[in-house]
Amino acid sequence: MTGVLCPGSYDPVHNGHLDVITRAAAMFDEVVVTVMVNPNKQGMFTVAERMELLRAVTADLPGVRVDSWAGLLVDFARTHGLVAIVKGLRGAADFDYELQMAQMNRKIGGVDTLYLATGVGTGYLSSSLLKEVAAFGGDVADLLPAVVHERLQQRLAERRA
Amino acid sequence: MTGVLCPGSYDPVHNGHLDVITRAAAMFDEVVVTVMVNPNKQGMFTVAERMELLRAVTADLPGVRVDSWAGLLVDFARTHGLVAIVKGLRGAADFDYELQMAQMNRKIGGVDTLYLATGVGTGYLSSSLLKEVAAFGGDVADLLPAVVHERLQQRLAERRA
Amino acid sequence: MTGVLCPGSYDPVHNGHLDVITRAAAMFDEVVVTVMVNPNKQGMFTVAERMELLRAVTADLPGVRVDSWAGLLVDFARTHGLVAIVKGLRGAADFDYELQMAQMNRKIGGVDTLYLATGVGTGYLSSSLLKEVAAFGGDVADLLPAVVHERLQQRLAERRA
Amino acid sequence: MTGVLCPGSYDPVHNGHLDVITRAAAMFDEVVVTVMVNPNKQGMFTVAERMELLRAVTADLPGVRVDSWAGLLVDFARTHGLVAIVKGLRGAADFDYELQMAQMNRKIGGVDTLYLATGVGTGYLSSSLLKEVAAFGGDVADLLPAVVHERLQQRLAERRA
Amino acid sequence: MTGVLCPGSYDPVHNGHLDVITRAAAMFDEVVVTVMVNPNKQGMFTVAERMELLRAVTADLPGVRVDSWAGLLVDFARTHGLVAIVKGLRGAADFDYELQMAQMNRKIGGVDTLYLATGVGTGYLSSSLLKEVAAFGGDVADLLPAVVHERLQQRLAERRA
Amino acid sequence: MTGVLCPGSYDPVHNGHLDVITRAAAMFDEVVVTVMVNPNKQGMFTVAERMELLRAVTADLPGVRVDSWAGLLVDFARTHGLVAIVKGLRGAADFDYELQMAQMNRKIGGVDTLYLATGVGTGYLSSSLLKEVAAFGGDVADLLPAVVHERLQQRLAERRA
Repeated sequence: MTGVLCPGSYDPVHNGHLDVITRAAAMFDEVVVTVMVNPNKQGMFTVAERMELLRAVTADLPGVRVDSWAGLLVDFARTHGLVAIVKGLRGAADFDYELQMAQMNRKIGGVDTLYLATGVGTGYLSSSLLKEVAAFGGDVADLLPAVVHERLQQRLAERRA
Repeated sequence: MTGVLCPGSYDPVHNGHLDVITRAAAMFDEVVVTVMVNPNKQGMFTVAERMELLRAVTADLPGVRVDSWAGLLVDFARTHGLVAIVKGLRGAADFDYELQMAQMNRKIGGVDTLYLATGVGTGYLSSSLLKEVAAFGGDVADLLPAVVHERLQQRLAERRA
Repeated sequence: MTGVLCPGSYDPVHNGHLDVITRAAAMFDEVVVTVMVNPNKQGMFTVAERMELLRAVTADLPGVRVDSWAGLLVDFARTHGLVAIVKGLRGAADFDYELQMAQMNRKIGGVDTLYLATGVGTGYLSSSLLKEVAAFGGDVADLLPAVVHERLQQRLAERRA
Repeated sequence: MTGVLCPGSYDPVHNGHLDVITRAAAMFDEVVVTVMVNPNKQGMFTVAERMELLRAVTADLPGVRVDSWAGLLVDFARTHGLVAIVKGLRGAADFDYELQMAQMNRKIGGVDTLYLATGVGTGYLSSSLLKEVAAFGGDVADLLPAVVHERLQQRLAERRA
Repeated sequence: MTGVLCPGSYDPVHNGHLDVITRAAAMFDEVVVTVMVNPNKQGMFTVAERMELLRAVTADLPGVRVDSWAGLLVDFARTHGLVAIVKGLRGAADFDYELQMAQMNRKIGGVDTLYLATGVGTGYLSSSLLKEVAAFGGDVADLLPAVVHERLQQRLAERRA
Repeated sequence: MTGVLCPGSYDPVHNGHLDVITRAAAMFDEVVVTVMVNPNKQGMFTVAERMELLRAVTADLPGVRVDSWAGLLVDFARTHGLVAIVKGLRGAADFDYELQMAQMNRKIGGVDTLYLATGVGTGYLSSSLLKEVAAFGGDVADLLPAVVHERLQQRLAERRA
């Protein structure tokens, strides 16, 4: 049985994330969607909220489970017996940084990284851009799962209140 | 059981290729190393010779077999029940072209592509550069499996004869 | 009245080209789609055929006309009183070459170049890739205007005959 | 009549900005230079000061006016009937981010983006780099309009006082 | 006699830095390793500590000396009669920013910049990534000179205390 | 005494080449401008003509001499006791290929490569683009040394005759 992890901040999960997770689930027996905890960065959603949303939108994907982690990715991978990290790759400019991370993770932990080219139609999505657009009233309903869109609108309404 | 293919011209296979094939074999049950036949391009080795060298250097890798193909990659993948194409990715400049190919292959055949960042120490290798260096007498013995290096030297000697 | 030109080999026109031409037509009074003639390169379609297909697929776009040219783009632009060249830009890797061309065209002819980021869903299209896929029997019907797809199938059938 | 907007923080306007604005003015009937207000970022100049400097240096350019905006670019464009955003593009590394923004702006607002390759001799300019160099006493007089250079020296003198 | 400077924050020096310094020392009579002081950024090591570590690890390299600077690089270069800045270049994505800096430094100070492609095996190293990995307990002993690794472990232990 | 080589096809030398050679001459005692001979590629000028033009335009640069070579760059460098290869670097897209070459040259010959960022105003020049523009009658007089421009016009006239 071969398992991989899909790391991210997922603040919140959007259709581009879901595209990568779905494709990984079609190729591997087990996919652990892993919310990376960054204590120095205040998100729009708590880690628990992000995990709850991820569980809601991946419920129908066989072999997918959701977890969180605050340390090195390679330690998480080894602890859970996962053979690789799977990430979406949007464009050439991201790659040099990704190459650096991938080579470091092989060096310090013997864990490999696989990149999936972003799908047609989701390559331009990022959580931070979606939050910024939504905060200004832009319509992002097509770009997020329905449950995430609803929760994002609630959160923005709370902030304005 | 999950299978993938590693396509290339492999004219001839070098240590960078072998690094990608070895890593793929650690992650997937079956890896089909597929020599892509290009009738418009005369190689240094025939397709049969390239396959023979690939078989020699991958003999000890479980789940790896060698084949060749002259059509669309996606047709090969579907015929053999392979879920994805696996390729090494050397640098940012390659990625834009790769993104184009990956999106086309998903569109026309529903076949996904996974990229492995090249390993530390093999990122600068390419068959054409190695052949050029060797033709001018440069020492490339460290950069190729021993059997390939020997065959390359023979071929260059034949050409000079 | 402001006019621009959209240069290309258009061998043949595909949906990505049409996206750029349509967007240019929404912004400028006149758009001259200009088939660049390269006497050293044998295309799949003659220049006359490419122009005929372009005329067919742009017939409903106001302000668009089709022409061909065998010299410097800047001479064509100045002769026809066009203020700029408009091109689609697919990815970062294309840009360095484009920057070189754009700066040369300003230097030798005072003609500026405007780039449109490729549309979601057409960024991976190129005429050469589409011809290659179609030649191997891949289904590209969604990626070309219907009339172009039909003509491409005819041409491929003629070649096989 | 076709209008576009040239957005930026313009803190302060430099010769690279002016090159883009001048070229846009040669191609479009109306160019709205739009200072984007970022309440989370303290600039060297207030929005009012930046607009005043922009008005001074664009006074002779027909069809150019200066405005500011604190929301989505696409809302500004639609409110003012502008067909496109025009931006300078410095290098390949910028492009991936720009592609993401351009595709988002088409999606949420149907507003297109046009890129102008930076001019020979201004490609290396950025407001932040110019301010940093000037703060350390570097001579940037050639790289800014005279009125802006004078105001920058004043501001730096006030800060040191 | 030809001298150059190798600027950086060196917080702390790692094997990738040392590779660049060693190669520069083989080509130039004098190499001044220059710790750039950034008063707005709290490092893990003080400037004095960084310089001490640099002196320790470059002690055997002829013609290398260590200094620090808080102003424009070009002023440092001219004051010390150094003809060029020498920097490592990791990947394509870094280059656009580097081009901007290099052109600015030629413009304001007539000082040129030379880039060395990072070595096989050190291209993925950066001080910030190494500190992050080490803080989470990852093994980075191979990636730093021994004296630096020891000091890094001490500092991390002090922080945890 | 430290010597370097500046390799290229120089068919013919243009102002961008001359910028790199001039800057190299300011930093090194000896600069060998080396015309790389490619027997498979017919140039516009013979190797002898290219060398003659290079000698004419570098006559006043101290320490510069002109040579040609048909083998591995590293063999040339070692034979002549040159410590490094010096090349201009135009943009990010070039860099990935250059990194590959530089790492190969260190591996097979222990010869290092130094890159100079192209100068403001010469970054868009290439011999092939200049020849193409000139062949169509474009004015490139500002972009080449006078003697080269004259010879280029002669050659084009001969070809038309």
